[in-house]
Amino acid sequence: MKPTHIEHLGIAVTSLADTMPFFEFLTGGKCYNIEEVADQKVKTAFFKVGEVKIELLEPTCPESTIAKFIEKNGGRGGIHHIAFNVENTAAALAEAEAAGLQLIDKAPRKGAENLMIAFLHPKSTCGVLTELCQQPK
Amino acid sequence: MKPTHIEHLGIAVTSLADTMPFFEFLTGGKCYNIEEVADQKVKTAFFKVGEVKIELLEPTCPESTIAKFIEKNGGRGGIHHIAFNVENTAAALAEAEAAGLQLIDKAPRKGAENLMIAFLHPKSTCGVLTELCQQPK
Repeated sequence: MKPTHIEHLGIAVTSLADTMPFFEFLTGGKCYNIEEVADQKVKTAFFKVGEVKIELLEPTCPESTIAKFIEKNGGRGGIHHIAFNVENTAAALAEAEAAGLQLIDKAPRKGAENLMIAFLHPKSTCGVLTELCQQPK
Repeated sequence: MKPTHIEHLGIAVTSLADTMPFFEFLTGGKCYNIEEVADQKVKTAFFKVGEVKIELLEPTCPESTIAKFIEKNGGRGGIHHIAFNVENTAAALAEAEAAGLQLIDKAPRKGAENLMIAFLHPKSTCGVLTELCQQPK
């Protein structure tokens, strides 16, 4: 695999409203996009530091995987995943599968900001929930 | 605060030897530095993706904070911290303290790769263990 850069860091939060002021302070910038991803049952808020986006993830219902992550984490938010930017998510996914990695998504799907995304299972990625992202054309 | 970029992502691993092949595959590059940080009781291995380094952290003894992180995480590794590059760690630390954040390090200290580093406490950073880093002169 040959990712060009870290596309974003996914951070689970209990509330966007409560945590956005801290991320404004930390990044020295304003949130530039808020978007609900119904498919993933989350509301997201984006910040940027250098070439990397910080994606805050607030669950929109208790069935959200982010809600489950927060519950497992003692009711607190935390770093959820690392997303790598690749030229072609389908090709990178095939490469990962050929290398014996366990896939969460068998095929790319649309994520926030119209990226074509796919997740690899942390069981085969040293405990790091790993996302592959391709920029929209 | 106005970090220039994400300096590195710290990832706890049970063994550098066992996990380095995966990170070579994921980043499409070779590890360019292996270094023991006696102070932090870890052995580190570095990879790079775009402007961001990936720092694998293997504990060198059971008292290492990384060993405790792994134990708490069910014996598995995972994403441990996010490090932000700043012009001046002491100034950024003072700014964080003035903003009411809880500090782990009251003053900058030397980390891997001769960076001047300091950690903020995850209790006041939305559950994200946050490191500030200044490049060596």
